[in-house]
Amino acid sequence: MNKSIYICLSPDLVHLYDLKGKIVVIVDILRATSCITTGLAHGVRSITPYESLEECKSMKQKGYYIAGERGGRKVNGFDIGNSPYSYMEPHLKDQKIAITTTNGTRAIEKSNDAEKIIIGAFLNLSAVENYLRLQESDVVILCAGWKGHINLEDSLYAGALALTLESEFHYTDDAVLVAKALYKEMKGGMLHAIQNASHAKRLKKFNVIKDIEFCLTHDRYDVVPVLKNGEIVI
Amino acid sequence: MNKSIYICLSPDLVHLYDLKGKIVVIVDILRATSCITTGLAHGVRSITPYESLEECKSMKQKGYYIAGERGGRKVNGFDIGNSPYSYMEPHLKDQKIAITTTNGTRAIEKSNDAEKIIIGAFLNLSAVENYLRLQESDVVILCAGWKGHINLEDSLYAGALALTLESEFHYTDDAVLVAKALYKEMKGGMLHAIQNASHAKRLKKFNVIKDIEFCLTHDRYDVVPVLKNGEIVI
Repeated sequence: MNKSIYICLSPDLVHLYDLKGKIVVIVDILRATSCITTGLAHGVRSITPYESLEECKSMKQKGYYIAGERGGRKVNGFDIGNSPYSYMEPHLKDQKIAITTTNGTRAIEKSNDAEKIIIGAFLNLSAVENYLRLQESDVVILCAGWKGHINLEDSLYAGALALTLESEFHYTDDAVLVAKALYKEMKGGMLHAIQNASHAKRLKKFNVIKDIEFCLTHDRYDVVPVLKNGEIVI
Repeated sequence: MNKSIYICLSPDLVHLYDLKGKIVVIVDILRATSCITTGLAHGVRSITPYESLEECKSMKQKGYYIAGERGGRKVNGFDIGNSPYSYMEPHLKDQKIAITTTNGTRAIEKSNDAEKIIIGAFLNLSAVENYLRLQESDVVILCAGWKGHINLEDSLYAGALALTLESEFHYTDDAVLVAKALYKEMKGGMLHAIQNASHAKRLKKFNVIKDIEFCLTHDRYDVVPVLKNGEIVI
């Protein structure tokens, strides 16, 4: 056991971690990384993240489908919102998507130093777990959070992933203990807990309970999205 | 219920919180806030925190007892280390102490905007709880952590305090959910968990298990230390 695992519960804490030579798992359960995993599992060719709406929108002219949401609603003029179900549409197969997401993109941008960046969600929990077991590198699970704040759903995922890997990775980081205990305490009632958490409360008015339920599904897809030259692909 | 409670799990996240008009509870269980609570409960007149060793040391000439620790050991030339037991000495009664503590002082300095700063530890958990119930202000529990990292013992305390106050405070902050779940999961085995956490591992070589056990004792003292003009007093 000579690999280490770290959990960074907010992008605003990422300066505390040395990402060089490490694999970073980006987590934004509601809903960027769940959507990305779903889309690629359903045959989308690539998904490119952008922080600004304008940049993302401009990709339309280059033949991309554009996905954008602000405040829980699909942005006017965009093709796709942020429901994972909208990433399953057959016409998206083999297409390229440009996605704008604030928290998720911010987390990716802050991971520039990493050896590799992969995308984690409950939907591909075991796939990511198996992938990480086979690598030699240390791992940092980076939660996208919400505007710098720690959020419940990303922390739960971090705990779930760290728990599955605990026999093969050691840790020196109390955030790993915190997240594992959180997952143990809440795993039986995650949907309820997340419905009462801040993010879901903000989203509730848009009837997204069906989306949340989907995003909490474990192991629906056996894919590990990886960032390559700015694009996320399988 | 029109008071809110927030938990800031690291001083490096404090920029996310507006402290104006709020009461900040500073937490540094191992061991600054446990020592401060112990000292004041045993009759020390005041405890003044300093970030630098030199500043703290210079207070000796002004008649202060000086308390300082680096890397888990009492600093040469200082009167008091960081064991809470050393704050019980009868000769400290009515005396002033200058203390240097990196994480705790940093947390206090980052709380300048607060309406009031108080000191929390398991040792005075119910005293702080009762105090906060009687105030009108919102509360931010600020964990000192370790060099910006989240640590287990401070997060556990934050969860314990938030749990006792949940009937009277509402929250919009997922960190409250995280910390409460953590405390629920671990409260039966805190000593064991903390002995295996990073901070305690660092300290273990100095035989401080007795100190850790003491710092986890709930409700030993019925005092609420408050920062007034730079000094902490009851």
